[in-house]
Amino acid sequence: MKAEVVAVGTELLLGQIVDTNSAWIGEHLALAGIDCHRQLKVGDNIDRIVAQLAESLERSDAVVVCGGLGPTQDDLTRDAIARLAGVELVRDERIETRIRAMFRARGRDMPANNLRQADVPKGATTIAQQPGTAPGLVCPIGDKVVYAMPGVPSEMKEMLAGTVIPDLRRRSGDTSVILSRVLRTWGQSESGVAEQLAGRIDSLDVSGNPTIAFLASGIEGIKVRITAKAAEALAAVRLLDDEEAQVRAVLGDLVFGLDDETMEAAVARLLADAGLTVGLVESLTGGLMASRLSLAARPFGVFGGGLVLEGAASATLLGEGYPGAGSGLPGGVLSEAGARAVADAARRALGTDVGLAVTGVGGPDEEAGHPVGTVFVGVALGEGGGSATLRLPGDRERIRGFATISAFDRLRRDLLAAAG
Amino acid sequence: MKAEVVAVGTELLLGQIVDTNSAWIGEHLALAGIDCHRQLKVGDNIDRIVAQLAESLERSDAVVVCGGLGPTQDDLTRDAIARLAGVELVRDERIETRIRAMFRARGRDMPANNLRQADVPKGATTIAQQPGTAPGLVCPIGDKVVYAMPGVPSEMKEMLAGTVIPDLRRRSGDTSVILSRVLRTWGQSESGVAEQLAGRIDSLDVSGNPTIAFLASGIEGIKVRITAKAAEALAAVRLLDDEEAQVRAVLGDLVFGLDDETMEAAVARLLADAGLTVGLVESLTGGLMASRLSLAARPFGVFGGGLVLEGAASATLLGEGYPGAGSGLPGGVLSEAGARAVADAARRALGTDVGLAVTGVGGPDEEAGHPVGTVFVGVALGEGGGSATLRLPGDRERIRGFATISAFDRLRRDLLAAAG
Repeated sequence: MKAEVVAVGTELLLGQIVDTNSAWIGEHLALAGIDCHRQLKVGDNIDRIVAQLAESLERSDAVVVCGGLGPTQDDLTRDAIARLAGVELVRDERIETRIRAMFRARGRDMPANNLRQADVPKGATTIAQQPGTAPGLVCPIGDKVVYAMPGVPSEMKEMLAGTVIPDLRRRSGDTSVILSRVLRTWGQSESGVAEQLAGRIDSLDVSGNPTIAFLASGIEGIKVRITAKAAEALAAVRLLDDEEAQVRAVLGDLVFGLDDETMEAAVARLLADAGLTVGLVESLTGGLMASRLSLAARPFGVFGGGLVLEGAASATLLGEGYPGAGSGLPGGVLSEAGARAVADAARRALGTDVGLAVTGVGGPDEEAGHPVGTVFVGVALGEGGGSATLRLPGDRERIRGFATISAFDRLRRDLLAAAG
Repeated sequence: MKAEVVAVGTELLLGQIVDTNSAWIGEHLALAGIDCHRQLKVGDNIDRIVAQLAESLERSDAVVVCGGLGPTQDDLTRDAIARLAGVELVRDERIETRIRAMFRARGRDMPANNLRQADVPKGATTIAQQPGTAPGLVCPIGDKVVYAMPGVPSEMKEMLAGTVIPDLRRRSGDTSVILSRVLRTWGQSESGVAEQLAGRIDSLDVSGNPTIAFLASGIEGIKVRITAKAAEALAAVRLLDDEEAQVRAVLGDLVFGLDDETMEAAVARLLADAGLTVGLVESLTGGLMASRLSLAARPFGVFGGGLVLEGAASATLLGEGYPGAGSGLPGGVLSEAGARAVADAARRALGTDVGLAVTGVGGPDEEAGHPVGTVFVGVALGEGGGSATLRLPGDRERIRGFATISAFDRLRRDLLAAAG
C-alpha cells in the first residue's frame, strides 16, 4: 500500500507557514505500515492542484491531501478533486444546515462563501469533525482513493487517526493492530544508545516484530521507539510490554520517561512520589529552569518557587548561606561546593524540601578562569545531595538549554538514589 | 524564472525531522522575485530522486535540492544529479585535500566514505562553505540548472543567499536589487493592522513598488514586511526608509521592533536608553518572563533578577510590601493594585530601578471569583507606572505565553510614555 501526501496552500510555498502536517502524516502512515515515498506542496492554483493529484495518484494507491478546504475562493481542494474525478460538486444539505446552525449559535452573519464547505464531489463520503465547519472527504477514484483534510493541525490529526488510516488499512486488507511506545533517554548519543541496544536489535531482526527505532530530539535526548504488530490490540500491548522491559533492563536509568513525558515532568513525578517540594536558584539559566519546571510540576504541586539572581541581590535574598565573595568558600558560586551551598540556601529561602541550583559561565567571555560553557549544578536533598561540573557546547542560549536539562537529570538521579 | 525545491531524506518522509528548509528557501525565492510553484520531499532512493529531479526540471528553469550530500551510502544527491545529466562523477582533488586536512586537524581518522563528498558531477561547479565538509553544487543541465545544498540549515542558508539566489537572478537577467524590512507589531489582529494600512496599500498598488505584506507570527504579533526593488541598493534602501516612515506614522507605537527584534529585546533597549534596570516577580508565568528577558537583556545589562513565587515564600521574600492576605489590600495580589504593589516590592527586593509583576489565574479552576485567563500586570516605574487587567484565551501554557508578551508590552508603553 503506497500513499503520497499533498499539502495545499500558497502560504506554505512562500514559507509563511512551515508544513508540519506532512511530517506528522508521514510518521503515522509509516507507523501504520503504509509506504509514503513522496510528499508535495502546491499552491492555491486549481490547474496545478489537479495536475499534482493526478501525478501522485498515478504513482500510488492513495493520496492524502491537507489544506484548501476553507470557505474562501482560494480554497480549491474540493473543486480540484471533482475535476480530477470528472464529477460534479453537490451541496450536502446536512452539512449546510450544520454550518448555518453554527453561525446562528455564535450570533454571527454567515458570509455566503461559507456554504462552499458544504459542497462535496459526487460519490465522495464526508468525514465529520468538531469544532470546524469544513468536513473531510473520502473520494474513491477508480480503485484508488483521495482523502482531503483541513490544514488545521488538530482537525487533520483527528481525521487522519479516526478515519483515513483505518480506511487505508482496510483497503490494504491488513487487519492487524500496530502500536508503538517511546522510551525517552538522556545522557547518551544516538550511536551510544544504539550500541547498547545492538543485542536487542539483532535478536529482533530475526522475528521482525517488534521493531526498535531511534529518534534524536535535539538536546531533549534520544527517543527509543518500540513498534509491535499483532492480530489484536491486547497481543500488541503484550509485545510492547515485554520489549519495554528488555530495553529498560539494558538502558537502566538512562530512560527518564515514556512517550510525551518531558525530563521536568519525570522530575516532578519523582518528587511527588517522595512527597517532596523543590525550590530553584538560577543565574546562568535565567529563569528557564523555573519556566519549565513550574509548568510540568503544576499537576503534582511540587514546585515551591524559583529565584533568578545575579550579583548583589543574591547575597541579600539568600542570606548568610550565600557563598559569594567574603564567604570564605574557595571558588565562590563558580564551583560544585558553591552550587551546593546555593541549593541549600534556595530551600531555606523558599521553604522547600529540596534545593536545586545552577551557576556557570554563559559567555561570551570566560569568568574566574572557567571557560565559556562551564556549568556547576548543586542539589540539596535531605542531609546530602549531589553536584556536577559540566562543559557544554554552543552559545549562551544553547548552554542554557543544555544546563537546564542536565540539572534536572542530576536531580532525577539523586531522587532515584534516595528512593533506593 | 521558475524554480522547484526538492528536499531529499527518508527521515523527512517519516516525520522524524520537519522540513523547515523548504519553507526558508521558498520565502527567499519569493523575496528575490523567483516563482516557486512546487516543493517536494523524496526519500534516499536514487531512482526516485532522479525521477523527481527530471520531473521538476521539466516544469521549471531551475531545481534547488537540499540534503543528501553527506558522506554515507544513503547520501545520493550527487549520484542522482550525475545520472540525470548523463555525466560521470569526478573526484575534486582540492576538496579531497581539504576534507583530509579537516580530519587531521581534529586528530580523527577519516572513514573512506568521507571522500564521496569530494565527488562532483562533471561540468558542475562547487560552492565552498565553512565549516562543513560537503560543498554545494551548481550543475547546469542544458539551459537549465540544478543546485544542491546540504540539509544542515546554517550551511544551506549561507549557500542559498551567497550563491544560489544571485546565480538565479543573473540567469533571469534581472540586475535589480530587492531588499526587505520587517516592522514588528503587537496588540492588533492581522485584519486590524491591514485595515489601518489600507490607505498605504491602495497607494502602493498603483506603483507596485515597494510592496507591503502581512505575516502572522502567533502570539508574537503581526509582522509588516516592506519589500522594495531598485536598480541599486542605495535606491532600494531609500524606498524602504520612506515607506517605513509612512507605516510608522500610521501604526504609531503598535510597532515595537525591526526585523528579528523580539518584544523583550525592544524592552531591554528602551531600559538601556533610559539607564534603568528591571526586576521581575512572577507567579502565573512561572519563570517564562525571566527566561526571555534575561537572555534578551544580556547585551544591555539591564536585568536585575527575577522571583518566581507563590504562596508563603512570597510574603517572606517580598517583605511588608507584599499585598497578600492581611495586607488590607482588597483583592490581594489578584488585582491591578496588587500587581502594582508586587512590582514595587520586586524592585525593592532586587534593588532595581523598575519593577514588573504578573499575577493571574492559569486554571484549570477559577480563583477568587476571577475566571481562568484573568491576568493582572503591574509596573513600578519612578513615582508611577502602569497596570492592566487582561482576559487571555487558551490553556495554562498559552495563557503564560500571552501574559508574558502582554506584560513586556505594558512595560514598553510605560517606558515610552516616561521618555516622553
